[in-house]
Amino acid sequence: MIKLDFHPAGRHFLQIPGPSPVPDRILRAISYPTIDHRGPEFGALGLKVLAGIKKVFKTQHPVIIYPSSGTGAWEAALSNTLSSGDIVLMYETGHFATLWKKMAEKLGLKPEFLGSPGSDGWRHAVSAQRIEERLRADSGHAIKAVCVVHNETSTGVTSNIAAVRRAIDAANHPALLLVDTISGLASIDYRHDEWGVDVTVSGSQKGLMLPPGIGLNAVSPKAIEASKTAGLRRSFWDWTEIIEMNKTGYWPYTPNTNLLYGLSEALDMILDEGLENVFARHQRLAHACREAVRAWGLEIQCADTDAYSPVLTGVMTPENMDADVVRKTVYERFNMSLGTGLGKVKGRMFRIGHLGDCNDLTLMAALAGCEMGLRLSGVRLAASGVTAAMDYLVSPAGSSALKAVA
Amino acid sequence: MIKLDFHPAGRHFLQIPGPSPVPDRILRAISYPTIDHRGPEFGALGLKVLAGIKKVFKTQHPVIIYPSSGTGAWEAALSNTLSSGDIVLMYETGHFATLWKKMAEKLGLKPEFLGSPGSDGWRHAVSAQRIEERLRADSGHAIKAVCVVHNETSTGVTSNIAAVRRAIDAANHPALLLVDTISGLASIDYRHDEWGVDVTVSGSQKGLMLPPGIGLNAVSPKAIEASKTAGLRRSFWDWTEIIEMNKTGYWPYTPNTNLLYGLSEALDMILDEGLENVFARHQRLAHACREAVRAWGLEIQCADTDAYSPVLTGVMTPENMDADVVRKTVYERFNMSLGTGLGKVKGRMFRIGHLGDCNDLTLMAALAGCEMGLRLSGVRLAASGVTAAMDYLVSPAGSSALKAVA
Amino acid sequence: MIKLDFHPAGRHFLQIPGPSPVPDRILRAISYPTIDHRGPEFGALGLKVLAGIKKVFKTQHPVIIYPSSGTGAWEAALSNTLSSGDIVLMYETGHFATLWKKMAEKLGLKPEFLGSPGSDGWRHAVSAQRIEERLRADSGHAIKAVCVVHNETSTGVTSNIAAVRRAIDAANHPALLLVDTISGLASIDYRHDEWGVDVTVSGSQKGLMLPPGIGLNAVSPKAIEASKTAGLRRSFWDWTEIIEMNKTGYWPYTPNTNLLYGLSEALDMILDEGLENVFARHQRLAHACREAVRAWGLEIQCADTDAYSPVLTGVMTPENMDADVVRKTVYERFNMSLGTGLGKVKGRMFRIGHLGDCNDLTLMAALAGCEMGLRLSGVRLAASGVTAAMDYLVSPAGSSALKAVA
Amino acid sequence: MIKLDFHPAGRHFLQIPGPSPVPDRILRAISYPTIDHRGPEFGALGLKVLAGIKKVFKTQHPVIIYPSSGTGAWEAALSNTLSSGDIVLMYETGHFATLWKKMAEKLGLKPEFLGSPGSDGWRHAVSAQRIEERLRADSGHAIKAVCVVHNETSTGVTSNIAAVRRAIDAANHPALLLVDTISGLASIDYRHDEWGVDVTVSGSQKGLMLPPGIGLNAVSPKAIEASKTAGLRRSFWDWTEIIEMNKTGYWPYTPNTNLLYGLSEALDMILDEGLENVFARHQRLAHACREAVRAWGLEIQCADTDAYSPVLTGVMTPENMDADVVRKTVYERFNMSLGTGLGKVKGRMFRIGHLGDCNDLTLMAALAGCEMGLRLSGVRLAASGVTAAMDYLVSPAGSSALKAVA
Repeated sequence: MIKLDFHPAGRHFLQIPGPSPVPDRILRAISYPTIDHRGPEFGALGLKVLAGIKKVFKTQHPVIIYPSSGTGAWEAALSNTLSSGDIVLMYETGHFATLWKKMAEKLGLKPEFLGSPGSDGWRHAVSAQRIEERLRADSGHAIKAVCVVHNETSTGVTSNIAAVRRAIDAANHPALLLVDTISGLASIDYRHDEWGVDVTVSGSQKGLMLPPGIGLNAVSPKAIEASKTAGLRRSFWDWTEIIEMNKTGYWPYTPNTNLLYGLSEALDMILDEGLENVFARHQRLAHACREAVRAWGLEIQCADTDAYSPVLTGVMTPENMDADVVRKTVYERFNMSLGTGLGKVKGRMFRIGHLGDCNDLTLMAALAGCEMGLRLSGVRLAASGVTAAMDYLVSPAGSSALKAVA
Repeated sequence: MIKLDFHPAGRHFLQIPGPSPVPDRILRAISYPTIDHRGPEFGALGLKVLAGIKKVFKTQHPVIIYPSSGTGAWEAALSNTLSSGDIVLMYETGHFATLWKKMAEKLGLKPEFLGSPGSDGWRHAVSAQRIEERLRADSGHAIKAVCVVHNETSTGVTSNIAAVRRAIDAANHPALLLVDTISGLASIDYRHDEWGVDVTVSGSQKGLMLPPGIGLNAVSPKAIEASKTAGLRRSFWDWTEIIEMNKTGYWPYTPNTNLLYGLSEALDMILDEGLENVFARHQRLAHACREAVRAWGLEIQCADTDAYSPVLTGVMTPENMDADVVRKTVYERFNMSLGTGLGKVKGRMFRIGHLGDCNDLTLMAALAGCEMGLRLSGVRLAASGVTAAMDYLVSPAGSSALKAVA
Repeated sequence: MIKLDFHPAGRHFLQIPGPSPVPDRILRAISYPTIDHRGPEFGALGLKVLAGIKKVFKTQHPVIIYPSSGTGAWEAALSNTLSSGDIVLMYETGHFATLWKKMAEKLGLKPEFLGSPGSDGWRHAVSAQRIEERLRADSGHAIKAVCVVHNETSTGVTSNIAAVRRAIDAANHPALLLVDTISGLASIDYRHDEWGVDVTVSGSQKGLMLPPGIGLNAVSPKAIEASKTAGLRRSFWDWTEIIEMNKTGYWPYTPNTNLLYGLSEALDMILDEGLENVFARHQRLAHACREAVRAWGLEIQCADTDAYSPVLTGVMTPENMDADVVRKTVYERFNMSLGTGLGKVKGRMFRIGHLGDCNDLTLMAALAGCEMGLRLSGVRLAASGVTAAMDYLVSPAGSSALKAVA
Repeated sequence: MIKLDFHPAGRHFLQIPGPSPVPDRILRAISYPTIDHRGPEFGALGLKVLAGIKKVFKTQHPVIIYPSSGTGAWEAALSNTLSSGDIVLMYETGHFATLWKKMAEKLGLKPEFLGSPGSDGWRHAVSAQRIEERLRADSGHAIKAVCVVHNETSTGVTSNIAAVRRAIDAANHPALLLVDTISGLASIDYRHDEWGVDVTVSGSQKGLMLPPGIGLNAVSPKAIEASKTAGLRRSFWDWTEIIEMNKTGYWPYTPNTNLLYGLSEALDMILDEGLENVFARHQRLAHACREAVRAWGLEIQCADTDAYSPVLTGVMTPENMDADVVRKTVYERFNMSLGTGLGKVKGRMFRIGHLGDCNDLTLMAALAGCEMGLRLSGVRLAASGVTAAMDYLVSPAGSSALKAVA
């Protein structure tokens, strides 16, 4: 029998870009006794989490909470707003953008997949300009939605959603804007209403610091309107009844109560720290991480300097070095999990997560584990990245906990 | 701020027919630290729960574990095996059978809804004979699937699935057999393979004693075959890729790790006690509960004496007594949750859950709470049901823990 | 290997008079991460629990919190205030009073053991009159302390401490008054200051609803004064340094941090419910329990009707019935623990605890378990005690949650 | 109201030399429901932990488990074996040796306090030679016991207990040997029987990885014999009745059940890893820590190179630098607790704990926090200690997980 409750001496470092380490407070919260999802206590819980999650999306409109993965929330976004055969404009930022496109095909949509020139290596952000050009060319408005990934978890590239909004507006195009910020929410500034996003897709196991099991859709009035007339055949994902019942804090089918306990606790933690402070902390740690990568003499996966992700950093290994060998060494020798390269960059890079319940010393531990793992794997490092990260963290810029630093 | 971690002095009695009370062991298990769902420890966990859950379904074939509610598993069953416009034969046993039918309509299927004569009150089990008659009449095999609810949670009526199988065979009809045993699994004997079920639908928050958040499909080779050629547009629910990746213990998208910890623990508990012992315990407690209802002089919702549910008992209140008034009194005065009457029986009955982590004394507490709540609500009781239940439990029949008693 | 985390299906009913069932909230609280007992967070915790526990003792003076059992707190009370060879007047109410006397002997004190006439069966409360008579006779003031047990856990007899105070005053005697309310605190009204108690001894695992591991001394200025000049050799138990360091929320040696987390939570729960409400709830449940015992036709161990304990009820079995046989049946058949008869009443009675985190339905479960266990053991019962208890609980008196009822 | 369940974003690093970080597994274990300490399940638990703890002490003789702090276990050791006025030879290794001596005085013993020449700064281990000389001079055998601290928690100096044993034997002296290894047990090789120790004193919150609240005495037959004829007045600490009742797994008074759950889990963890592996891990991490201190150009508190502690490292700050200012900076800026200088070295040094549930990356995090905290406090460092520690850990010596390295 496997021993689930066993780990080697000392704490495991879960430094993948999600699931992020779940704080003890949240683990305790999800272990509260399950209650009647139709009873009065539940209604109070429901209203609390529904109100709190809106603040995190920066929206005044409904947010739907599904008992599902983020993948399910992708399907919910597509199936509520689009009809079979609809053309959707998607953008190849990396592995997850590609998976979302595959899902669109399976659901009977017709995705058109834009990509940056030379994007084979998945190193660039969404180009708002290319989207604008394509939409301008679509004079017949055949394109029903633009779908982009805000923070591409497979690479560590963050795209500018406000710019995409401006591109759609500049093209004077009626397409809906659908955004995946599964790994960005509660880690990177995100403004559902201000940026005019129609459906934002997210999940629980990243910046919200929860275990996986919750999928999220923030929806605009325009998206709700679209769902009334269009939409693929759907029942489980259908917004209508959920939005209606959510008004009193309940759900039409059994919600995953214990994860909602965790969400309630997570919202308390995030809003107590302050959303802007959370964002600044992520920026600061990400900056320190990149200082380390540069000092090692390795390349950062993200090639656009204004698109570095505050959530994770993709590290490219030298030509002759399989990144998964490094990851294995780090796992076995230092009890730390790093993210693997996915899809077409498998073996070429690894990913360091620095999101959610992360602070200076967990990052330092992660960087020390990477540095030692790289050395033990035979990678020649230019200098100590750990030292470089510390230099930044004790510098005036790095000491500043409350201001975003690039 | 609401206090989620607060309850009045003493333990709450969650006596609804699911979510059932989650044992401390399982609550602790779901609070294990979340791990990398692509790491080696996870694969071992995945293989363990996938093997264990097959034993509970009594199947040699794949079981799919979704991060969803049971409702989601309904949708998965329909969308993997049926095509738009397909006629499905469903059977009105109660509220949940009705909801499943509505879902079929939303997904573009054409359900035909059989019901028992005089079934307005939802007091009868599935009639295998009526199904057989209808299938015999369908000489052109327009009906693609027969969908029945094994244990109707809204009423406490358990149908005979083996008989439905025999009916289909007797009619020599190729329809698939889809069964919902969301509230029956791990509480009532269930034999997916032996009974020739094609898709069995279930969930986590009933006999498996977990919080809600897991949906289940057990699938036959015939169902898998059907999914290759037919099927509604689907992605999240699609069996193919999940079954493939499950072979090594992984999932194509992020599974809800912490509930899988709980599932692992639940399987240990259930298989340690022994499935047949678990079933016998449910039978014994259900029998005791019915003795109490009869002593009170109230009617049991289930009118077929061979269809009494071992999971819950529906109790009809006298004509002039709103059952929800009784429930409210019990909740406020005795800190116990009872199930409400759903749909067309709202206010006419309440439901006592006696499933999952239930034993003699939690049942006795529940019955005492009902008896006192009924009295305080002004219901004249013929005699003490608590005494009747004790009489049964100390009798030779009731003392027998290991043999099923009717 | 034993499986500590295993129990049979369904909840265990821990109905002994302590340790009482620890609420989930408190179990979660004691699982908070251990912190530095010299750091700033700890000081805030220390000050909070030290302030809160005074309210429970109803005292303005110091309360000392030991990492020990209640037995340790007995030794602390004796060793801080008395010197080798001192005569102390103790009173034989039962097993625990006897153990305290034996401890006094081991520590070199000279206990004189008063008892009620015919007290062989330990069925009576402390007689304040006999104490007064004895003190009047001690014109030379050789007696240095009067030691009594407030709630005798071995029998379910509660003595009148205010009356003992009046007796000492009436005799105009300078003896210190030392009281053990290990099983009474936070369940029965107790007034350290108003009753002029010099040292009150208590522990964590009864009305405070915590696991065992905390011993308590509430001390009067007179006791502190006595500790300066008299006292047995002591170091660990010495009040002086603890009281001094407690002023800032710290301890001279490592306190048991995680139980203090639990104490903090317990104080929140008790003070939120309201001390007087807690007391009334205990009175009401104890009354219901006695109604059951009387209906069974069995004798209550406590023979003084004005000394019934709100914490536990001692139940005498018929002459030919070994009480431990009943207990064993109840344990094995109904998964419930009852208290054994201790010392000279072993086998003659069992004890039902109804203290701490107890409510109407846990009591009803306990009474049902007793009733069925008695029947299965062959005891002929006059009538159903469960029914009698319910009759009381639904009566106007029993329904009144906020007023004490005798 | 203070928020006990709150910490800043990210994990707190508890790097004091005890309480050490309590692993999640153990925190979950101590949150198991409290059971009847006189019931059958408890006896199985008791026998298990009593057998397991003997392995950790490397003894065949009884180990007494007190619900107390380690301070209590000091008192137990002295009061069971010594009589009022007895002369005991103690050795000034640091703050805790000094506190034990003060306790001996309070209990009426006559301690004689040896110290190393120039030991004002508490930088040296016990000199077995000086003990031998003193015992040889005590031809009348007035000295009844030799009391030494194995691992002095206040300084990070580990003394050679085998050498002390040889010194007593060489002097042919009958004195008992009492050893405090509160912070050494389960972290440093310790051999109660082989080294002929009569009473070994320990506690729960160090190498055993538990919260504080358990005190331990391992006792030799000679010590038990001594306790029969000699001994201070005692009751709570008295070995006799505890040893007797422990034979069946029970205690004469209420043990602290929930910490025993934790002890059971800790023993599983330690014995699964293997005691010798645990010791080697501590040696390796301590070595890495000292490499860092040396690279910084700071002095290690322990001046005897063969007495470096595997449990903690004392770091002396430069003359003009208050060590507590560094600690405050580290606490506030990096969410890490370091040990303060105690007694006569207050402000002159800080202590880094690397014991219990510690691994390479938690150590690296701790060293990074120290290095950055020292820099922010204005201390000029010769070089990066973090780099030096990594150099060691990736070296062949440091990579060897299973062999002890000096």
